[in-house]
Amino acid sequence: MHESGIALAQHILRLRVYYEDTDAGGIVYYANYLKFFERCRTELLRAHGIDQSAWLDQGVGFVVRRAEVDYRASARLDDTLIVTAQVERLGAASAWFAQRAMRDEVCLAAARVQVACIDIRTARPRPLPDALHAALRGAATESF
Amino acid sequence: MHESGIALAQHILRLRVYYEDTDAGGIVYYANYLKFFERCRTELLRAHGIDQSAWLDQGVGFVVRRAEVDYRASARLDDTLIVTAQVERLGAASAWFAQRAMRDEVCLAAARVQVACIDIRTARPRPLPDALHAALRGAATESF
Amino acid sequence: MHESGIALAQHILRLRVYYEDTDAGGIVYYANYLKFFERCRTELLRAHGIDQSAWLDQGVGFVVRRAEVDYRASARLDDTLIVTAQVERLGAASAWFAQRAMRDEVCLAAARVQVACIDIRTARPRPLPDALHAALRGAATESF
Amino acid sequence: MHESGIALAQHILRLRVYYEDTDAGGIVYYANYLKFFERCRTELLRAHGIDQSAWLDQGVGFVVRRAEVDYRASARLDDTLIVTAQVERLGAASAWFAQRAMRDEVCLAAARVQVACIDIRTARPRPLPDALHAALRGAATESF
Repeated sequence: MHESGIALAQHILRLRVYYEDTDAGGIVYYANYLKFFERCRTELLRAHGIDQSAWLDQGVGFVVRRAEVDYRASARLDDTLIVTAQVERLGAASAWFAQRAMRDEVCLAAARVQVACIDIRTARPRPLPDALHAALRGAATESF
Repeated sequence: MHESGIALAQHILRLRVYYEDTDAGGIVYYANYLKFFERCRTELLRAHGIDQSAWLDQGVGFVVRRAEVDYRASARLDDTLIVTAQVERLGAASAWFAQRAMRDEVCLAAARVQVACIDIRTARPRPLPDALHAALRGAATESF
Repeated sequence: MHESGIALAQHILRLRVYYEDTDAGGIVYYANYLKFFERCRTELLRAHGIDQSAWLDQGVGFVVRRAEVDYRASARLDDTLIVTAQVERLGAASAWFAQRAMRDEVCLAAARVQVACIDIRTARPRPLPDALHAALRGAATESF
Repeated sequence: MHESGIALAQHILRLRVYYEDTDAGGIVYYANYLKFFERCRTELLRAHGIDQSAWLDQGVGFVVRRAEVDYRASARLDDTLIVTAQVERLGAASAWFAQRAMRDEVCLAAARVQVACIDIRTARPRPLPDALHAALRGAATESF
């Protein structure tokens, strides 16, 4: 029983759909949801004290290992979207994020994204530095 | 020997990585592989006589319903990539494509992408028009 | 009293630089400033009651006729930018915007962008509808 | 007298318009012409032996200092475009390129783009290395 043990640490980003996001079909181009999701993950990390460009300067980078996206309905020019991210699972060297793009109460796209830590110089996977791991644990959906 | 009648009807697109494709990590930005995959699907369709903009004028559009991408290694500025697409499964109203982005013999990214047919005016799913279905069947991995 | 007749009706948009905006040189890719500038023009129009997607539905569109950009310094990942737009000159069928992208007190890029009104069906120039012209006049740098 | 001394060293890149290039207005998004122009400049440089990623590894980068674009007509989904670049003027630390995007005989967009050489570590302007200067001189519109 997780009566009180659940902390829904969901990060929320509000954004507007501009011309740049749309395509000739009149809707948001499918690749651009990955941009929206990445913006929200970045803000989630920032909210937990993780500054990606500072880590990059120290040779620690993040790369996406796997992305799964379900596209359920289309966003259009001028729509206001709510994009969410939460840490779903946390490993020694990577984290899984559950993400959504919503318009009002409608989920337009839902995704699972695995982000791995790499050594920038070798491009090889490396364990998450302790400070990063702790910050992501703080961002995770469940209290540990 | 092609005993079992499998014709690997794989479409191939060669492309170059430009600055626009890369990010501050020095590698191709993860969303941009979806652009590469879509370019290749478009060329596969074109090679089988399917002109998306003509169909669009008739109110028949294609939207991506689901995309799954495994990112295995990174492409860099000036790399030449081979992107492939093949019709993996064909339904009444959608098709699944198996896709890869390769540099030399190395698979950098592998994807499965489901593309559905919609009525542009209602944004609702509709069966593939016969001509489209036949063309995609011709493009499929197996002879029917 | 507007003694000198100048009302600096400058619209301001604050935005963050994400990975999607950067390139392998570690800086914001030069084409992306045009996206930032367009976001700010859109918000200026919205602030003056102009809803581009509603006009689009009525067959009235906006296209950029000319853009001049001076790139003076580079924005980087995680930077917070202030983007500005003001109507510099207003004609019967087009408007000129003066725009800037700033980081703190430093101007990174300055632009002049001419936006023209077109009939979407013919793609031909057309005069600005009266309501649009009035709204843009309200947004212009000088009181009229 | 330059009777015979003119060599029109214009580089030509043929490209296709994909969904990713278009917007909800049904036409190529204005910022994307800067991508097309940059692809063509890259290929011009490559054709003259200049490998930008190799120079980047040596700390020598190129940045755009100024871009002027006239948008004359719109490109649409599935269009085949011819993009051109030629070195119009060559200075000690920068080069001006004249560029066009054409569909058949129609010029859709014409641009002048100034590209400057920088030291990547300091982000400051630096003279073009001799080998680069010679290669660009070879690419220039006039024989020297």
